[in-house]
Parts: sequence; structure tokens; C-alpha cells
Amino acid sequence: MPRGVMQSVEDCQIAILGAGLIGASWAALFVHHGASVRVWDPSAEALQDLEGRMAGPLAQLCDLSSGAAATGRVSQCNALEEAIADADLIQENAPENVALKHELYARVEPLLKPGAILASSTSALTWSELAPGLAQPDCLITAHPFNPPHLVPLVEIYGRDAARLERAEAIYSAAGRVPVRLKKDATGHIANRLASALWREAVHMVAEDIADVAAIDAALVHGPGLRWSTIGAHLAYHLGGGDAGMAGYLAHLGPSQERRWATLGNPTLTPELCAALVDGVLTEAYGRDIKTLERQRDDALIAALKARK
Amino acid sequence: MPRGVMQSVEDCQIAILGAGLIGASWAALFVHHGASVRVWDPSAEALQDLEGRMAGPLAQLCDLSSGAAATGRVSQCNALEEAIADADLIQENAPENVALKHELYARVEPLLKPGAILASSTSALTWSELAPGLAQPDCLITAHPFNPPHLVPLVEIYGRDAARLERAEAIYSAAGRVPVRLKKDATGHIANRLASALWREAVHMVAEDIADVAAIDAALVHGPGLRWSTIGAHLAYHLGGGDAGMAGYLAHLGPSQERRWATLGNPTLTPELCAALVDGVLTEAYGRDIKTLERQRDDALIAALKARK
Repeated sequence: MPRGVMQSVEDCQIAILGAGLIGASWAALFVHHGASVRVWDPSAEALQDLEGRMAGPLAQLCDLSSGAAATGRVSQCNALEEAIADADLIQENAPENVALKHELYARVEPLLKPGAILASSTSALTWSELAPGLAQPDCLITAHPFNPPHLVPLVEIYGRDAARLERAEAIYSAAGRVPVRLKKDATGHIANRLASALWREAVHMVAEDIADVAAIDAALVHGPGLRWSTIGAHLAYHLGGGDAGMAGYLAHLGPSQERRWATLGNPTLTPELCAALVDGVLTEAYGRDIKTLERQRDDALIAALKARK
Repeated sequence: MPRGVMQSVEDCQIAILGAGLIGASWAALFVHHGASVRVWDPSAEALQDLEGRMAGPLAQLCDLSSGAAATGRVSQCNALEEAIADADLIQENAPENVALKHELYARVEPLLKPGAILASSTSALTWSELAPGLAQPDCLITAHPFNPPHLVPLVEIYGRDAARLERAEAIYSAAGRVPVRLKKDATGHIANRLASALWREAVHMVAEDIADVAAIDAALVHGPGLRWSTIGAHLAYHLGGGDAGMAGYLAHLGPSQERRWATLGNPTLTPELCAALVDGVLTEAYGRDIKTLERQRDDALIAALKARK
């Protein structure tokens, strides 16, 4: 995947715009890997809380790398100019609002050094929606992390300037990420389209009372989820075709997949269905609050990532 | 999940009908966990190859349990009567053909001891399609493993007799499986419905040239697949709602999920699209043959399962 040759991000100047959860997670990741990171946020309060928000992610990254502490440094900037000056990569984590991001880009663009990469963490918006906010949209890429960004390796990338895309991939790879490139701009990039398609059927099964919320989640975690953490869906069907691989699979089971697709659901989130989903997850959570569930997810992610090494 | 109290399967007599890959995987699993296993297959040749087919799974199970060797025993039966006599659980792995399974059930039923469980590994068929093959369908459950059955813990269960369902869950749990119960008979059970829904969108993205086959697989393995190996889709959206959990998620992002669902694809497996899928997986496989890919998947599964302990 990585097309660049960068071995570390130690010589990189990174700017993080937005000191919320996603911004703090990015900051921790880059600092852990040795980069010089400057964080800006329009809210002085958010900026003050940055250290606290980075502490958990930094401890987890230290755990993941067998106790190796962060080698980079982070500073908080009250002025946007200060954060962006000399930055090679500017990771933007502003709220998911086109007008607001366009306003921010109008302030950012004049401050960019030549060749700088303006990378948007946007989940819901596309490159094509964001590009009109810039006079020279070549500097813009979308670089969507999967939550939590400092643990889940995926970064989905789209842009128009080949040189910047290669450099961005090299930087993310050097920070232990797995950059994956889209060929076309698409709402939801790749991963959230897959997640949305899967969840639609998971919701449908609740609506049809085929299984409980907790049973559906257990089936995923102990079945396809586990397998998809080791092998992709396409390659899994390639193995499903025996010696003839994907060609054999499609010849023998393609028609039955098309029939299955025709039976999948298309639920509407009615008040009754929403109530069933809420009841179901509360039963599954079994008294565990959000913080506890997040910690358990992160512990499991760290164990799974260690197993990959 | 496990509702029974069985701590081991050492006192269980297990019959495996069908000595192919799935049957051999089940046999290895139960033998590893200490059960007495009798395997029958209508083909003497398949029966002769059983030991060879069990060798790999037995070695992997030994590896998974830190070197502990199998404590059960296996015997090959040329007569169906011999395999089924005294069996508590009969795991049926016949080809996915209703008429053929009905014929087999007509031979099996008179041989069952009182309370015995006839469990079908069927992937494509439902309990309702199989039940007419029996005079007393109460003895039948569907118990669908996820490939490869000796490694992936999920077993999806449906049946009508509460006592047999509980005993089956206790037996599978004692063999290290995670039984998940369906409330209603459904084609594809839970996991293959989820997998089919996800793959439809993965195929759609290839059809629309949004990303390469290998990129889509990489996004899954390093993004949602990894996360779904630690937390289910429903619970993940519960965390996505912040302190308000699923209720907050649905209130704020339910409408945008419905809009996303409306943009998901519904591809047709045309010859051109099939060719693109075959080309794509071959590029992703990068010269690795099916055997090599299977071994790499299994190694990764074993590492992931060890990390769960």
C-alpha cells in the first residue's frame, strides 16, 4: 500500500486543526511516532483540555509498542498561522458542515507552504463537496480515519494530486496506519459504505424478530467479524470457490448470491424499531456504561493489534 | 450464551455424518475437546481420507491450546447404525440438497436414541425445509458453523425443542464454540445474511470503480473487520451516540443512515463484473495459491483467537 519511502515521521511538521476526540487521537498518534505536532482549535477551552484527551491514547500507543514512549512533541497554538507555518500535513477535524469547512479553508489556504497537504478527516462529506472551498483544490485530500484513529489502522484517501497522495500515504504509513486509496470520490468512502450495508441487514433482522440485538452482535464478533479481521470479503469468496477460486465461486454460487441479495431487508427506522434497537443494546450492554464499553473495545483492539505483529 | 451447565464433552458420544472438509473439521474439534466421535460417510474413500483431513485441524487446535493434545477418540464407521448408536449429538454434513437430506433423515430417525439431537450444518437450507424429512422434527436443529468450523467459534442454532436447544448449546460451548440462537428460521441464518449484505456493497464498489478489489478488502481488514472482531455493529453505533448511546445515535444520525442506505448499490453479476472480480482477487492474491491463502488466514485466525484468551 505505501508508495512513499518515508521510514519515520520524525522530520514531519504536522498541524492538527480541532482539539476534540478525533484531533487528540491524531495528535497522540503522530507524537507517539516522533513527529512535531502543532494543534489549533478555535476554542481556547478545547485547546486547554488537549493534554487530558491525549493522555489515554498516548498510554495505549505506549502499551501497543511494548512500552516505548512517545518521541515527538506537541504544542498548542492559539493562532492558526502558528499551527500551519511550515506544516507538511495539516489534518483538519472541523465539524461536518460544508460552509464551516469552506470558511476554515479560506483562512488556511494562504498560510500553506508549497506542496503542503491539507487532509480532511471528514466522514460524511466528499472531496468534491470540500474542494470548492479552495482556490487551488490540488492541495486537498480526504483522509478518513476509522474510530478510534490511533488504534484502528485504516485511513481512506482520495485526492487529485498524485504527488501529494503519495506523500500522504508515506506519512500515514510511517505513523503505523494502513492508507487505502479510492479511485472515485464516494459518500461514506469504502468502510462506512460497507458498515452501513451490513448494519441495514442487522437492523432488518431485529425488525423481523429473526434474532435479538445481542445475538446478532455475537454472531458478527465470533463469526464474520473475526474472519474479516484476517481476510477481506472478496478474498474470502475466492477461497470459497475451492481450487477454481473466485471464478469457480461465481460460476457455482453467483446466482444464489443474487437470490440472497433479493431477500435482504430495507428497514425504516420507525419509533417502534428504534425502541427495539435501544432496548436490545441496553440488554447487551448489561449495565456497562459507554466509558466501560469503550475501554473494553480498546483493550480488545490492542490485543488484536498485538497479535498481528 | 451457554444455557447448559456442561463443563466438558468427555462424556458425549458424537456422530459426524459426512467425512468431507466440514465433517473432518467438526470431528477434529470434538476429539480435541475429549469427546468420543464416530464418523460415517457413504463413500468408503472419503472415510479413508478422514485421518488426513483431520491432521491439519488437530495440529491447529493443539497450537491454539498451547500444545495440549486431543484427549478424545475417533472411529470410522462403515455402517450408519454403528455411528448413530448411543450418539447424543449427530452432526449432519450432507450436500446442500433437500431431497438427499430427507432421504438420509429417513434412515437416521429410527436409529436415534431418546433425546438425541440431530444437528444439520446446513448453510443454504432452513429448518423448515429440512423438518418434513422427519416424523418427529423436534429432534432436528440447524447448527451452522462458520468456516473453518474448528477455528471460527460461531455456531448459529435454530430448532423447536427447548430442551434439545439447551443441551446442544451446552455441548457446543464445552467444545469452545459460541452458540448463537435465532428466534426465527431464516435463510442464511444471521452471519451469511450479514456477509451477503456487506459483499453486495463491496461488489457494487467494484462495479462503480470506486476502489480496487484489493483496496476494498484492505479497508475491511484494517477498519470495520478489525473493529467487528471486538464489538458488534449494533453496540458500535451505541458507542457512536456518545453519552446518549443508541438513542442519541438514532436521534441524530438515524436519518443520515437511512439516506446512506438509499445510496447503496444493487449490482448484477454480469460477465464483465465477474471478470473484474476475478482479476481483482488475482491481483490481490499476488501469486499466492488457495492453499497458501488458507494457511495465512488460519494462522491469522489462530493469532487472533490466542489474543482473546
